[in-house]
Amino acid sequence: MTQSLPVRNPRNGKYDYTIHPPEATELATICQKMRRAQTHWQAMGVAGRVAALQQWKKVSQAMLPAIIEALATDTGRKAESVLEAQLIASSIDRWCNIATEVLSQKIEKPSSIPFISIQQELEPYELVGVISPWNFPLLLSLIDTIPALLAGCAVIVKPSEITPRFIKPLMQSIAQVPALAEVLVYVEGAGQTGAQLIELTDLICFTGSVATGLKVYESAARHFKPVFLELGGKDPAIVTATANLEHATSSLLWGSVVNAGQSCLSIERIYVEDRVFEPFVDLLVQKANRLQFAYPTYESGQIGPIISDKQIAIINEHLRDAKEKGAHILTGSGQVEMIDGGGWCFPTVLTNVTPDMKVMTEETFGPLMPVMPFHGIEDAIEKANSTIFGLSGAVFAGTNEEAIAIGKRIKGGAISINDSALTAVVHEGEKNSFKMSGIGGTRMGAAAIRRFMRQKAFLIKQQAIPSPWWFDSPH
Amino acid sequence: MTQSLPVRNPRNGKYDYTIHPPEATELATICQKMRRAQTHWQAMGVAGRVAALQQWKKVSQAMLPAIIEALATDTGRKAESVLEAQLIASSIDRWCNIATEVLSQKIEKPSSIPFISIQQELEPYELVGVISPWNFPLLLSLIDTIPALLAGCAVIVKPSEITPRFIKPLMQSIAQVPALAEVLVYVEGAGQTGAQLIELTDLICFTGSVATGLKVYESAARHFKPVFLELGGKDPAIVTATANLEHATSSLLWGSVVNAGQSCLSIERIYVEDRVFEPFVDLLVQKANRLQFAYPTYESGQIGPIISDKQIAIINEHLRDAKEKGAHILTGSGQVEMIDGGGWCFPTVLTNVTPDMKVMTEETFGPLMPVMPFHGIEDAIEKANSTIFGLSGAVFAGTNEEAIAIGKRIKGGAISINDSALTAVVHEGEKNSFKMSGIGGTRMGAAAIRRFMRQKAFLIKQQAIPSPWWFDSPH
Repeated sequence: MTQSLPVRNPRNGKYDYTIHPPEATELATICQKMRRAQTHWQAMGVAGRVAALQQWKKVSQAMLPAIIEALATDTGRKAESVLEAQLIASSIDRWCNIATEVLSQKIEKPSSIPFISIQQELEPYELVGVISPWNFPLLLSLIDTIPALLAGCAVIVKPSEITPRFIKPLMQSIAQVPALAEVLVYVEGAGQTGAQLIELTDLICFTGSVATGLKVYESAARHFKPVFLELGGKDPAIVTATANLEHATSSLLWGSVVNAGQSCLSIERIYVEDRVFEPFVDLLVQKANRLQFAYPTYESGQIGPIISDKQIAIINEHLRDAKEKGAHILTGSGQVEMIDGGGWCFPTVLTNVTPDMKVMTEETFGPLMPVMPFHGIEDAIEKANSTIFGLSGAVFAGTNEEAIAIGKRIKGGAISINDSALTAVVHEGEKNSFKMSGIGGTRMGAAAIRRFMRQKAFLIKQQAIPSPWWFDSPH
Repeated sequence: MTQSLPVRNPRNGKYDYTIHPPEATELATICQKMRRAQTHWQAMGVAGRVAALQQWKKVSQAMLPAIIEALATDTGRKAESVLEAQLIASSIDRWCNIATEVLSQKIEKPSSIPFISIQQELEPYELVGVISPWNFPLLLSLIDTIPALLAGCAVIVKPSEITPRFIKPLMQSIAQVPALAEVLVYVEGAGQTGAQLIELTDLICFTGSVATGLKVYESAARHFKPVFLELGGKDPAIVTATANLEHATSSLLWGSVVNAGQSCLSIERIYVEDRVFEPFVDLLVQKANRLQFAYPTYESGQIGPIISDKQIAIINEHLRDAKEKGAHILTGSGQVEMIDGGGWCFPTVLTNVTPDMKVMTEETFGPLMPVMPFHGIEDAIEKANSTIFGLSGAVFAGTNEEAIAIGKRIKGGAISINDSALTAVVHEGEKNSFKMSGIGGTRMGAAAIRRFMRQKAFLIKQQAIPSPWWFDSPH
């Protein structure tokens, strides 16, 4: 028997919810049923699938309050939960437009061989598995799912066992669109369920840590399944002396502490040209000190609790290690504060940091802002590229041209120019991860839909022409 | 010390050549040097890289006789060796044209967010490893290499230890283009060298068997490297009663026995509509019997020796298993014939075959043509899709429309319509492998170059606009 799992509430530390992962046989039955339904889903064509998703968008609106409430309980924060829930509608619309454009074309290709023509077709993978994380539980469970559905796949989603409360109201909204409910199933579960999904599906999308991503990749390889891995980051920001410091500090503060820093694309290291290091730090400290915990109510401030208790330990360890090695803590208490059972981390500006500190090399996933001076652009580039990660980054400089020239040398898939963490709001840039930050195709744009489909080529001999092969004239 | 390895000659079975795989440290040094050179290669731009490859094309022409002779000794067959060597020039030209088109564009994307613009860039992986097989030693060592070079990568190639003689003359031709010689290195070696390459490179292209492909994938996953795997096939052909049998038999004979069937895209199973089964088999047998071994000279016939001695054993086992289970052998001697130390397999038509025979489920990689009747299209589709493979296939019918309708239901990346194995000659169709036949992007067309590059997006804030974030108006 699969064990039921207790779920912690990030605002009070109580285990006040329980999930019931499916038995292995039950999960296999679900997947089998979904595969049968997928045939029909694919045959509906892109117009039919768009219609089903639009219907879901419509009916989901009535469920938004319940979804938002569940998400807020899952994550301990409200404003971001509202944003996540609103994204159901806007991302359905965006992907429906892209899918209609991508999948409606009939592609014929010229052939270099006389009397042979080429027709191209796209054929979806039948069953896609999505394993999604706890930091943006709804948003990141949909980011691969909606394009995969529009491609014609059935999609089974296993959100993190840390934030599973939103699954029930979401499934209730999906149930109102029967054609969709047959090919979109959310299941509760932890690592064991995820491991089973790798065996049962044709392609795995995983968003999460590098450590788990490595395990997913190895298991996928053993079962000969393709994977898309979106893993961690340690995104650097470079601020030159020519930058507008007022703007840079506001933007970097947002990019570092939004969702309490629990975002793969959050800024985790700030390198500032030595000449402007002091005024930069002064401004950043001033602005950070204006922020407040969203406690006792959701509306009391901007900074929510740390969602995962394991993450509380990691952030504390990074702070302990930094202090021990001589870092100066300029804001906050230098640790995650336990208040009524929840863990809260104040936006923390650190200086006197060194490259050997965990806070400069490992993913913190908290609202920490280690700031380090650099001397000359070569030094900045070297520092920015000094981790195993290569997700994204940001550059602030006097002109966009100056910033882009620096950004070209940062190893990362998306570089925000004179702003930070723009991948959170701009959905049109196509990007791949560098180094350990991921494997596989871009999640944005038309390519994000095509990665769920195999290209199939029909190579067509024109009938009337006799075969030129040597067997027709035997020697 | 790495051991030197003796190499068998497929025409006489003698071990008349030796390779000397590099030591692990030596290989690491080569790769390090190549990474340094890659920076310059990338900076040369697509025009510079095209120029270098065109220069290689030019100087390689003088080396063709030596390359052809080495290849012919490696593989025991001459005509295909000539074709492979000629492909150096034609594939350089083809890829140079595609690369110039793909990489010269500057891509700007519209953004949905006001005051933010998007620029896209493509950044090559630094060092690509290519592990290539023995059936078309030169052709398949270049198929990933040339597009990767044009993308801006350095490429280290390890051809099969079974057919390594062509490496020396090829390297001599590469040495004449110094800029290229720094970023294109062929190394001798077997599995151990291949395993080291996975650790030393950033991306692995492997062409070979499913069994080795699985090992490569698992090792790549352990080292967190992306892979492109092009593995085996068991390509089916479907022939309906409406098909032109004269044409179908000629075409399928070619598709089954070219290169003595040692091709991943060769036809390995033929399903013929029951009404025309007998006349089809009669014609196929007649035509097969016109063929001859290319023995004692290269020019004596069309069928070369089996290149790998392990493959001789596999083909013999498939024939033994088929005979034991009741198959009728209509041409040839029913086994690989050992003549003067070489192994020769006559084009073998088999009937009375059943789905439980190895010859119907496992990759034979020899000139075997098991022919099975089907009754109705549903039966044909089910039979065609009944293996773990999904590389390609062929359909012959009275009209192209009829054949395409059937081909749409075959699980495979390329379907030849009223011809067979057209992927061998048509290079413009983009295709992916289905099931166990492979993982990763298409080898044809523009996408084949882009898969060696990461997309990078610059998300650019327009300078003059003040930041809208909530930190500018603290509450």
